[in-house]
Order: sequence, then structure tokens, then C-alpha cells
Amino acid sequence: MTEQEPLLKIGLPKGSLQNSTLDLFERAGYRVNVRDRSYFPTINDPELSSVLFRAQEMSRYVEDGVVDIGITGHDWVIENQSDVHEVCELVYSKATSKPVRWVLAVPEESDYHKPEDLAGGIVATELLQSTRRYFQEKNIPIKKVEFSWGATEVKARLVDAIVDVTETGSSLRANKLRVIDTLMTSTTRLIANKEAWTDEAKRRKIEDLALLLEGAINARGQVGLKLNARRVDLDTILGIMPAAQSPTVNELADRDWVAIEVIVDVTVERDLVPKLKRAGATAIFSYPLNKVIA
Amino acid sequence: MTEQEPLLKIGLPKGSLQNSTLDLFERAGYRVNVRDRSYFPTINDPELSSVLFRAQEMSRYVEDGVVDIGITGHDWVIENQSDVHEVCELVYSKATSKPVRWVLAVPEESDYHKPEDLAGGIVATELLQSTRRYFQEKNIPIKKVEFSWGATEVKARLVDAIVDVTETGSSLRANKLRVIDTLMTSTTRLIANKEAWTDEAKRRKIEDLALLLEGAINARGQVGLKLNARRVDLDTILGIMPAAQSPTVNELADRDWVAIEVIVDVTVERDLVPKLKRAGATAIFSYPLNKVIA
Amino acid sequence: MTEQEPLLKIGLPKGSLQNSTLDLFERAGYRVNVRDRSYFPTINDPELSSVLFRAQEMSRYVEDGVVDIGITGHDWVIENQSDVHEVCELVYSKATSKPVRWVLAVPEESDYHKPEDLAGGIVATELLQSTRRYFQEKNIPIKKVEFSWGATEVKARLVDAIVDVTETGSSLRANKLRVIDTLMTSTTRLIANKEAWTDEAKRRKIEDLALLLEGAINARGQVGLKLNARRVDLDTILGIMPAAQSPTVNELADRDWVAIEVIVDVTVERDLVPKLKRAGATAIFSYPLNKVIA
Amino acid sequence: MTEQEPLLKIGLPKGSLQNSTLDLFERAGYRVNVRDRSYFPTINDPELSSVLFRAQEMSRYVEDGVVDIGITGHDWVIENQSDVHEVCELVYSKATSKPVRWVLAVPEESDYHKPEDLAGGIVATELLQSTRRYFQEKNIPIKKVEFSWGATEVKARLVDAIVDVTETGSSLRANKLRVIDTLMTSTTRLIANKEAWTDEAKRRKIEDLALLLEGAINARGQVGLKLNARRVDLDTILGIMPAAQSPTVNELADRDWVAIEVIVDVTVERDLVPKLKRAGATAIFSYPLNKVIA
Amino acid sequence: MTEQEPLLKIGLPKGSLQNSTLDLFERAGYRVNVRDRSYFPTINDPELSSVLFRAQEMSRYVEDGVVDIGITGHDWVIENQSDVHEVCELVYSKATSKPVRWVLAVPEESDYHKPEDLAGGIVATELLQSTRRYFQEKNIPIKKVEFSWGATEVKARLVDAIVDVTETGSSLRANKLRVIDTLMTSTTRLIANKEAWTDEAKRRKIEDLALLLEGAINARGQVGLKLNARRVDLDTILGIMPAAQSPTVNELADRDWVAIEVIVDVTVERDLVPKLKRAGATAIFSYPLNKVIA
Amino acid sequence: MTEQEPLLKIGLPKGSLQNSTLDLFERAGYRVNVRDRSYFPTINDPELSSVLFRAQEMSRYVEDGVVDIGITGHDWVIENQSDVHEVCELVYSKATSKPVRWVLAVPEESDYHKPEDLAGGIVATELLQSTRRYFQEKNIPIKKVEFSWGATEVKARLVDAIVDVTETGSSLRANKLRVIDTLMTSTTRLIANKEAWTDEAKRRKIEDLALLLEGAINARGQVGLKLNARRVDLDTILGIMPAAQSPTVNELADRDWVAIEVIVDVTVERDLVPKLKRAGATAIFSYPLNKVIA
Repeated sequence: MTEQEPLLKIGLPKGSLQNSTLDLFERAGYRVNVRDRSYFPTINDPELSSVLFRAQEMSRYVEDGVVDIGITGHDWVIENQSDVHEVCELVYSKATSKPVRWVLAVPEESDYHKPEDLAGGIVATELLQSTRRYFQEKNIPIKKVEFSWGATEVKARLVDAIVDVTETGSSLRANKLRVIDTLMTSTTRLIANKEAWTDEAKRRKIEDLALLLEGAINARGQVGLKLNARRVDLDTILGIMPAAQSPTVNELADRDWVAIEVIVDVTVERDLVPKLKRAGATAIFSYPLNKVIA
Repeated sequence: MTEQEPLLKIGLPKGSLQNSTLDLFERAGYRVNVRDRSYFPTINDPELSSVLFRAQEMSRYVEDGVVDIGITGHDWVIENQSDVHEVCELVYSKATSKPVRWVLAVPEESDYHKPEDLAGGIVATELLQSTRRYFQEKNIPIKKVEFSWGATEVKARLVDAIVDVTETGSSLRANKLRVIDTLMTSTTRLIANKEAWTDEAKRRKIEDLALLLEGAINARGQVGLKLNARRVDLDTILGIMPAAQSPTVNELADRDWVAIEVIVDVTVERDLVPKLKRAGATAIFSYPLNKVIA
Repeated sequence: MTEQEPLLKIGLPKGSLQNSTLDLFERAGYRVNVRDRSYFPTINDPELSSVLFRAQEMSRYVEDGVVDIGITGHDWVIENQSDVHEVCELVYSKATSKPVRWVLAVPEESDYHKPEDLAGGIVATELLQSTRRYFQEKNIPIKKVEFSWGATEVKARLVDAIVDVTETGSSLRANKLRVIDTLMTSTTRLIANKEAWTDEAKRRKIEDLALLLEGAINARGQVGLKLNARRVDLDTILGIMPAAQSPTVNELADRDWVAIEVIVDVTVERDLVPKLKRAGATAIFSYPLNKVIA
Repeated sequence: MTEQEPLLKIGLPKGSLQNSTLDLFERAGYRVNVRDRSYFPTINDPELSSVLFRAQEMSRYVEDGVVDIGITGHDWVIENQSDVHEVCELVYSKATSKPVRWVLAVPEESDYHKPEDLAGGIVATELLQSTRRYFQEKNIPIKKVEFSWGATEVKARLVDAIVDVTETGSSLRANKLRVIDTLMTSTTRLIANKEAWTDEAKRRKIEDLALLLEGAINARGQVGLKLNARRVDLDTILGIMPAAQSPTVNELADRDWVAIEVIVDVTVERDLVPKLKRAGATAIFSYPLNKVIA
Repeated sequence: MTEQEPLLKIGLPKGSLQNSTLDLFERAGYRVNVRDRSYFPTINDPELSSVLFRAQEMSRYVEDGVVDIGITGHDWVIENQSDVHEVCELVYSKATSKPVRWVLAVPEESDYHKPEDLAGGIVATELLQSTRRYFQEKNIPIKKVEFSWGATEVKARLVDAIVDVTETGSSLRANKLRVIDTLMTSTTRLIANKEAWTDEAKRRKIEDLALLLEGAINARGQVGLKLNARRVDLDTILGIMPAAQSPTVNELADRDWVAIEVIVDVTVERDLVPKLKRAGATAIFSYPLNKVIA
Repeated sequence: MTEQEPLLKIGLPKGSLQNSTLDLFERAGYRVNVRDRSYFPTINDPELSSVLFRAQEMSRYVEDGVVDIGITGHDWVIENQSDVHEVCELVYSKATSKPVRWVLAVPEESDYHKPEDLAGGIVATELLQSTRRYFQEKNIPIKKVEFSWGATEVKARLVDAIVDVTETGSSLRANKLRVIDTLMTSTTRLIANKEAWTDEAKRRKIEDLALLLEGAINARGQVGLKLNARRVDLDTILGIMPAAQSPTVNELADRDWVAIEVIVDVTVERDLVPKLKRAGATAIFSYPLNKVIA
């Protein structure tokens, strides 16, 4: 639709991260439209074009320059041994903000208790290369590391062990598996093609985009908090405020009063509000945020 | 998951109020997770734990100290004759902010016109004890007050009268029933165990929680309204403002102008905005709110 | 439900625009309730009453005074040759803010290349009168302009050509049709009965309503942006700001600093934020808006 | 997909009748596939091809020979004054098997009581031509018969009267309308192009198709009922059977017994089964049917 | 809608059994329509009328003659001590055909191991009266049997024990409860008012209805199986057939062969078919059934 | 749940074939329950146990004896080079009964027209090994055959060609791809471990199961057709019948008539019924089938 060649090609993750990614871009200021089954979403910035890839494949396409940047997990960068630049972390998964872990797991009732016990055994995993390297580096001779098409947990009882990804551990528990080692932890990343990263115009655009995406992530779970205070109470009230944030103090027309505004976490707000009220603050209110630049 | 014993146990209402309650807590700053069919939601504050009860049973568990506080209707506190402390009203039902009423109703075509006409009759109701007390206090001898498992309206034609709850009266009209008396009105309440209420740490936590819940309820249906005005127009413009709210007047760098900010109801805003514009205000805009502390 | 005769009767568009219209009114400060299949929504302002009409018919009912004002497309005002006053445009369709177009289209493979080629042919369309006038004005003798009940695209291969509405052109492409002329472009309008428009009280109410609806539309896709700056950097930072917007500069308690607040488009924000940060601005954040009065 | 030109082109009704029509064809032995938004369903008989039309337009396309046969209501054949052959009725609507009626209706509270009262008035309807002819034949001078795009009931209060279609009358009652005359009754029909009907091969195919569609309709609401009886009880048992059906009596290996099989309505079955059991029948059972050729 | 007074009033169970009950009546030959939120379904037999009640209340309304017959669980007949006639069992629940059990259950980790251990304790249950009688008959002094409004499992840890209903035991296991006694087993029943049962016309109708309902239940999970066999193989083949069923043997035109037809369970069919084929049967096929009268 | 070791372990396909497989087993006489996310469905035959695998992996687990039999595509048997016994085809996919094809495809606009043109190119596919073998056997040196995680069609424009599976070709057309060769065709199979196949008890069970599954597949798309005919018309009528089927001719009590019963395809039935009626047959009806043993 635009005749102009876009400055930057972005790979967006298809599948489980797709909707939360589009949502994040929306809050960052970009409207991304995925038409029907098209793999080429449109994006309302003539400098950007985008394509959907599975997170597992993303880093390969970034490395090869098919796209300039992409969003994927650190784990798949490592698995693919992709030579890319990791620009920043993007922690926007809903359930939890903790990294996922790739673990070596066996049935609870099995006799395997440490990686070495698996010598001569078979291990099933979706993370083939990393698992092979893991056992090689430990000098543990494995009979076979075999590729699993998913539902890896269930295979722990068909072979000797599995290497699988876990966020909260609940699926491992449900399948009565025991973790005997952790191979890797991983979070979502914005990654860039190395050549693109050395191109000045592209790098500027990537850094700006990273700033906006991070700003949108920060705004989640924070609110703007406002209140009025007597000038004589100002020090007391500023003393209650969390050290990390620096409140803005505005002049009011009535010179005995000042207005204070601060950005705080919702979990901080809930502790702060009762204290502020007891310290004499009035007209306390809070409002939702769109973007917070650290 | 937390080893620490929580300070306060909260009873949350299961059923029709459940989703709006979780939503209210979210806006108050608490994330409550109900996993699958568990009755013990998790809550992201180590000082709190929670359990789901039917609103009908809540006050019994608060009275017995199974939980320290609970959210339920005033009607069921009375029905259960529970000896609890009512901390505050929480008016967050969506459809309307009016109290519900428990009414004595008969078929439109029936000959009953006042409570006394029901002497010797049968009354079906979900509110067994309160209905019995009502007729005893009035010295009206009823043959039987029988428990209804729901769909009480339809039984008005199978027995002599019913005592049922109504919010807007639409279900009564749909079933062609006529109200001949009101036994009780009721709203949702935050209630506390009496012992918990005398424990200083618990009471402080309860009061803080009440403040945040009320703040979140207040924010619904209000907006923050901002505008700039010439200093010479200030009095005129403040005169237009609703008396109840006290606007904050900020100094601007350009000393001929001031910035005014006020929290108003959305229904007030729609009348106010055209008047402000006609009075010379500029840069008028409004924004949604998260919490308003009265 | 209200005994008082409402000041203004509004026609709301039934069908594809209905939900976005109710949503717009909500953000403008009016709660409109459509009960079940009723055509008479209730509205929480005693001065207003409302009725639902198909957009195609709206202008006829406004012209006749059945309602005082209505929301419909300019195309159907023209099609119906209705003598009404167009108060303002209301551009709140979700997919795009571009006008829709009514186009003359033929199968890609057909031999028709200009309107004149259709002389003696049959044209199917939902926009009967305007199509007839179009060919009359061009002096092209058409055998028949026949009414189409919808799915007009598919008929392009059953007759000689169609006149159909298109927003993005995607349906035309999917049906392999070629556009050979554009008859009309159209956007959504607030239209008023001419008599109502000369009645002082009604006109005042219409203008206020238009102000609020436009304010709510403006707020979409804009954010409030705030930041602190050193007084010495103020001119640089104001120089970065888009010319169209005039920022509000507030005094801070620390006299070396000022607070700046401005309303900007989300697409402007995404360019502005990185520049502001590079220019030394701190405490940059943005928040969603409810209404913006231009 | 088939190179061969199909013998017969069928118009299938798009919209409310679509799913039940496809279902009927399935039970008649034809699998009709509607891909996505295509208007050209595929059909697993190389002699047939099909296209979807709105029921309102069907008869025009049948008359013009765009399709050889079509399924539509008798009402729209009349409205379009289409010169087609009506092959048979197809009564497969789910809710009721009664014909629909097009009625002249006015508000309950109106002063109009007979068609003549509408002289000089305005009538809104979707059935434009038939309504005009109706008043012309009755010599009632109407000011205007105006086209309604649907939701005609609601217009009865905006103009003087409406002509609308009704199946059970519930929508009329809900809108508090009173019927003052019936213009037409209608059922679904299989209609044929007159030329196609005189072509021997096409007519044979149409008659066969009609036989199968009617057979599938008959099978709905009927069951096959089987039982064994002593030869001595045979006359008694046949006497219980409904007169309309002629049971098949089979020889059994045990010459003292016979097997009886009959096709009956489910509402007949429920009366018959207890009687048969009391008359000594054994091994009574029933089974669902696919097609019944009268 | 029918002027005639219906012969029999039926109470149908509202709630979890409702849909499977309507489905059962449909297969028995009755179409029951539940309009919107009406409690008075219509039924296509002028001799029948129906009303919806909760299963818990059903027997009270049958006993009082508000309805002549009803469908409910045996447990609630006992709980309500209702003096009604139980006509037959109706085993049509989908998940399993085993009776439900009301059990006395305690937390797995508790020290209670037999009913006597609960002396002086509190028991929560929905089945108030039966639980009280149970402890009275066992002479176990209970402090309180308190009414539970549902989610009774979760209360086992708030009081001392619960009495709750279980079908497969999975909810008990999920809540880590241990059963220490069974109070009652129960299945669904067709129950009749005692006076109605002595009225000849009503009893005839009730018995016919029971026959049809049981016939429809029997047909589930059975098929009609047909095959041809050489007359010389007949004895061998009949020897393979299950003893309980008596096959029908038909004469064929070819006198060396006979046709055999038998009604069998689907689980029997799967064993029978391979054996029949090995024994020389040909043209083996099976078909679904609608009703089987034992 | 069963203490007895099951005779046979079955691998059922997880994913797109899962529901239709469970449905097939149901009609074959087996109820398979998949609880929540369990991979071990229960099955109501103590001789059987089951486990869910992806079709891609199935043959490996059958070959290794993890399960005795499995249901999967012939393509994945070949891809995995699994040494298993193919018991029979099971053609129960809904959309079509034609085999799927794995094709080598390129963009419509590309210059590749035969496999040899891809020498030195990159090919993406889910069928890695078979694709490599294909090019090796043809002696075409490919730069890389790379694994595709799905959505392979879209990659045809990122690399040189793809090998992808297609049933109707519609996805290829939608992506504007051109097929230049077919590598393999495939249908669903019942496969058995070779050792299990030589075990007499297991083989008997496998053959019985195959008989029942094929019987259930045959019954789809066939009906039982019955009619009465005059004995004098018998030869004519039998002459109309399809040669493949042998009708059963029953004696009727009225010796001038016979009853004829035959199993036919629904597509045959629709041709047959009109002919039979014209030949004098009466009481023609058809009914659905559950199982047909060829």
C-alpha cells in the first residue's frame, strides 16, 4: 500500500505471544492489523513493515536479515545459535513476570537423581541442540536426544528423561515429574540483525521503538497519583513517598497549598493512600497510565 | 505458598457478585486469582488470604471468626441474626446503585391487599427467618412459611404469597405480581468479625482496605477535568463549577493564565463542558480515573 | 418513564454502526440502554429520547421531523434527496478514518473500461436513485438500474456492472472486480431537521451534544503527555513540540524546573517521546483521555 | 472442477433458510458445501450446480433462466410477478408447519378498523408491489406505499399502517399491533423455469429431486415401528393401527407368529405403543427414518 | 392455549437435569418447549401440562397435588418425607448409570474414622432432615447440623464433617476428603400423587407415559442388528446370540436362507459381529433405535 | 482402574484427527473418554488401553512396541521409515475421501518449472527425510532442505520451494503457489507392531477391531432401503438394483407381495428411489445405519 520501502522489517511472534504483542504495540503507539490468515500484518508507520514467524524460528530470520528485528525468547536464540544482537528484555507475559526455565525432568518414581544417572539413556525434547550441548559439556554419554513435537511431559515415561520448558511448574506437577537440573532460563527479547544494528538510521529507529515498548510495559501496573497538601506538611508527606520515585510539586494559586503528583506501582499505591490521608493530604486521586519512560 | 500467616482472612462472595468483586479489588490494587474450581483464591498481598462463600452464608463465617471480614448483603446479616460489625457500604453493582428490597407480593388478581389478609395462608420465601419474624411482630398468624429453593416468583400462584428480593421490579411485573409490603431494604456491605475489629493491627488493615475499595468505587462514573483560563475569568469560571467539588488552581508560567483541575461526575461533565467553553476556557480535556478518595 | 416531554428526539443508527455509536455516547457522558429487541433505547438525560433507524432511512425521518437529529452517512442523505442540515462530521468508524466510496465496478476480465461502455447495459446497486442520476447526468442510456438486496459484488457477473460501497477495496479485490468510476464519497454525519435547527433551545442542545461527541472522538487516539524540564531547556523542548498543540507550562516548587503538559496524537507521541528524552526531559509519562475539546 | 456442463442449475436460498435447506439436501442424498463466503456452493452430483440467492430475488433469476429451479416463498413469486412453474411445496421450516401470512396491521390503539379506513394514508412494507395491487384492486386510494428496509413493525407508529409477514403473530403482539386484513398466505416452494420444465431431461431430473426432497421432509417426525404378534392376534392388532398406514406383515420361521412393520408419526407412535403392548404384541421397537416416499 | 383442562400435570426438574429430561421426552414422542424464562413449558399433547420445579422441591408439590406426577431424585423424596407413589426408575443421566450416594465425609488428615467420632461436632449439609435423622437413629449426639448453600466439600475443613452427594467420587478426591459412611443411595424416579394414582384415567396415562419414557431410555446404547444365514447354520448362529434376547427369524424368498434380526447392546454387538461373521453370517448390519419396549 | 493388564495398547492420534477418531470408535461400539488434558484416555473394554500421540510420531511408538497398534497417516510411516504392519485403510476424514498429497510447490510467478530447476536451492518442509530422499533419488543437488514449523506455504517466498501437504489444493491457491511435482500420496491407516501381529490373541483382537472400525466407516454414507413389490414385478425391480449389492427378499403374509431390503450408498439411493417408484414399488423408505459389514 505504501510505495516507499520501509526502513525496518519486524518479525512478530505468531501463536501464544501474538495477541499480547499486538496489544503491546497498540499501547506503544502502533496499530498492527492482522488480516484473516495473512502472515504480513500491516502497521500504521510507513517506516515499518512486519511479518509473523513462530518464536522458534524468529532468530534465524533475524540473523539472515529477512527481518531487521524480532521478538522471541532468549532460549530460541541460544538453541538456534543465532548470531544476533539482543536489544532489551520485554517482560509483558501476563501470568507472571518470572523467566521461564528449561529443565531436565524425570518421573517422580524414577531412580534418576542427577544428570549423570542418564548416561546411556534417551532424552526427549523440543530443544534439541541445547540439550545435546548440555550433555556434551558435562561429558555424559547419552544414547539419543530425540525431538519431541510437543506434549513432551507425557514422554517422560516413554523414554528416560525430558528437557521441557516450565513457567510455574504446574504442568510438571500435574504429570508427576521431578526436576533434576535446569539447563537455561529465558525471557522475551527484542533482537536485532547485527548489520541493521550498525546502520545508523536503523539503529536510531530500533532504539526509539525499544524506548516506546518499554514505556508501555512500565505503564502496566502503575498509576498517576495526585494530591494536595499544605505547604507546612510538605516534608512529612514527601517523607512518606517511596524513595525511588521523585514527586513533582506544583504551585497552587492558594500559596498555602501545593499539588503533588507521582507515578507509583499499584501495589505501592494501596499502601501509600491510607498513609497520605492520615498525614493530612486532600483531594487524593489516581488515574491509569499509557506510557512511563523510566 | 507464603509461609507467613496472613494478618487478615477475607470472605469473598461466590456467585453473581463474584466477578464484579474481583474487578473492584483489581482497581483497588489487589490481584485476586481464582484457580479453576478452587474456593481459596490467591491474592497478591502477603497480609491477606481469601475464601469464597455464598453471600447467604457469609455472615455466619464472619461471626464465627472463620474469616475476619466479608462482603455480603445487609439482608443476609439480618436473616442469619449474625453479630458482626458493618464497616461500610460498597455500592458497586452494575445495573443500578439503588438498594434491593425484600417485598411481600401476591398475584395481581388476588384478593389479598394488606399483610393481615394473609392470616392462615402459606408464604414461600428464600428468607425464612426474617419472614417469620415479620409476621410474628405484626401478630399475623401464618399457617406456614416455607423455604423456596429459587424461582420464588412462580410460586406466588401455588401458595398464597411470596417474600422475594427485587432490584428494579421488572421480574415482579413480568410475573404479574403486586407488592403489598416491603420487609427490608439492603445494600452490599463490608462486615467484620467483632473481635477482629477490636484488634488494632487488624482494624487498621480493615480501614485501609475499606478506604481503597471506596476510592475505587468513587472513581467509577467520575472523570478528571482540566482546562486553562485567563486569570481575569477565574471567578466566573469557578462560579460555574458545581459547589460540591473544590477545584485545584495551578500557576502557569504565563502569569495571565491559570490551570484548573477538578474531579466531576460524567453526568456533570456533559453539562459543564459547553458552559466552560462559552465562558472562555481553553484546552479543556478530561481523563478516566482509577481511585478517588473523598 | 419520564413524564416530561424530552427536548430533543435522536435517531440512532441500527445495525453495523449501532455498537460503536452507543460506545461513543457513553464516552460523551450518556448511557444509552437498548433493551432486548426494543427500537426505543433509554438514555439517562431527561431532555433526550431516542429511536433506532437503519442508516439508509434516517434522513427521511429527520427531514419529516419524526426525530430532530440523527446519525447517518452523507451518501444516504444524498440518495434520499433529504432536505436536512448537516451539523458536523463524526468520524468514529473503527477500521479506518477514510471516507467510504461508492464505485462503478465490473469484472476484471470484462471489456467495459469507462462508464460510457455500459450504454444499454444493466447495473445492479443498493443505491438506486443516485446511480440513475449519475447515468442521466452523463447522458449514458442504461437499459436498467436494478435494486440489489446485498452481496452486490457477486452480481457483477450476472449483470453488466454494479455500483457498490467500499472502504478498503478488499471485497472488490476478493471478487476480482475492477473500479471504473467513483460516484460519491461519504462519511458519517450528525444531521438536524431544519425546523429544529432554527429553534433556539433545540439548537443550543444540538450544539452542546455535537461538542461532546466531537470531544469524545478527539480523545480517541490522543494521550495526555507530561514531563519535567529544566527552565533553561524550556525553549528547546517547546521547539520540539508539534506546532498545532500549545503546551501548558506549570510552575514547580523547585524554581529551576517546570512541568509541561500537552495533548498529542498517539502517532505523534511515539515520535516525540524519544526526542524529548534526548533533549533532557525527565519524568515523561502519558495517560489515556476521555474527551478533548479542540 | 467438473468439465461437464451440469444438467440443472439450482438457486438455493441465502440467509435464514440456508442452513435448514442444506440440511434437507443432505438428508435427500446431496452434500452441498458452502466455502467461506462463496456464493457458489459445490454439490456432489455432476448433473447439478448451485448458486445462493436471497429468497426475495430467487424467482427473478428462475424466470430469467439464470438458474433452472429455485427454492423460495410463494409470496416472493407473487411480489415479483414471476412467470415460473411451481413444482411442489416444501414444508421444512422448524418452528411450525403452518404457512406464513402477510397482514395489514395497525397500532392496537389506532382508529383504523378496516382497509378502507386507510384511504389517504401511508403504508410501509417490504412487499411493495403486492401491497399496491391490493389497494388498487380494492379501489382504496392510498397516499403512498413506501418501502421498508426491515423492522417494519416499528414503523406502524410512524406511518398509518404496515403490511408485514408473520408466522405465529408473536412479533405483532410484542409491538401491540392489530391485524385488520390478510393479503396473502405463503409457503416455501420448489419453482422451475418454464422452459426448463418443458425440457424432458431437465423435467425428469426436477421431478426426481422433488421426490427425494419430499421423502426427506416426510421422514422427519416419523419412525419405523416393528413388533411381533401371534397369528391369532393379527386382526386385533391391525385393527389398532391407524387407517392411513398399511402395515407390512412378514412371515416368521415360527409359523404361529408374524412380524409387523409400519411407518407412523411420532405422535401416533406414543399412543399406539401402549395399546399394542396391551393387545399382546412383543418385541416392540422403533427406529429413526431417513426418507419416506408417500 | 388449549381450552380443555389437561388430564395430567407434570413437574419437570429445573436445572442440571432439565436438558436431558427434555431430550428424553422428545425421544419418547413429546415436544416440550421452554420459552425464555417461563416456568410453564408447553407440551404437544392436549392431555398434558407441565411446570418446572427444582428437584429438591418436586416431591412437596407432587404430594400436595399441585402436579400429578414429577421427576426427581429418590433422595429428595426421603428428605422431604413426602407421601408419594414411586412409579419407576428413570436412569438417563449421561455420565454414568450408577446411583448417586450421600456420604458422610471428613478431611483425609482428620482423626474422625467412624460416625461415632463426630459426637459433639458440627456437620454441614444440603440434606438437613435426613442427616439429623441419621444421627438420631444412631444415637450420636451432634452439636449442630447446619444448612449448606452449596460448595459443601470446601466446608469439611471449616466444620467437623459434611454430608454431600457424590456420583463418581472425583470431587471428594479433588478436595482430599475421606468417606466414613454412606447415608443413602438414590436414582431418578417418576413419582405420582397418591390420589392421581388411584384415578383410573390418570393412572392409565401415567403408565403409558412411563412405558414410553422407559422405552426411550432402553433404546440408548442398543442397536438393531440384522444378518442373513443359511438355514443349515441357523442353530449355530442362534447359539452365539446372547441368551437374554430372542431373535426374530424371517423367511426369505430363497428358502435356503433366513434373515435374523435382534436388538442388542452396543457393547454386545462389538463382540457378536466378528463371531457371526466367522460363523458364516452375511449381509450383517446394524442401525440406531428410537424406542425399545422390554 | 482395571487391575487386569489389557491385551492391546492402542495409540490414538492427537490433534486434528482426534475428535473424528473418538467418534469413529463410539460408532464402532467403544466409548473413549479423554479427561481434561490427560494423554491416557479410558476405554470401556478391559482388553484395551489407549494413549494419545501426534500422528507424526505414531509409527515410531508402534515400531518400538510402546503401543501394539496405532492410527496414523501412511506418509508419516514412510517419513519415519518405520517397520510396522499396515492392517487396513481407515477413510473417515470428513471433508473428502481422497488421499492427501505431499507436493513440491513454488510461487506462481517463479521461474522454477521442474524439480531439476531447484538444484542449488533451499526447500522448506515439515517432511524432512522424505524430501531429502526424493532429491537424492533424482540426483538433484539441493543446498538445504530446512525444517518448517508449520505455515509452510508462506515460506515459499522466503526460500526457493516448499514441500507441503494438500487435500483440496485450496491453501496452495490462496497463497498463489504452483505445484511442480507430487512426492507422495497418503491415507489414514491402522498400523500394528510386527511382533503383536504374530501373537495369535493380539492378532485376533486387532482383526476384530479392524472389522468393527471398517463397519462403522462403511455405515457412513449408506442407508437401509426397504420397499414392497408385487411378486410379478420382482425381476424388474431386482434388475434396477445396483449389481454390487444383493438385496434380501422377504416373504409377506400376502403371498402376491414381497418385501425387499438392501443397503445402498446415499448417492445410489437418490438415483434408485425414483426408478423404483416408477417400476411400481410401494412403501419405499430408508433409515440410517450404524455399522455395515461388507
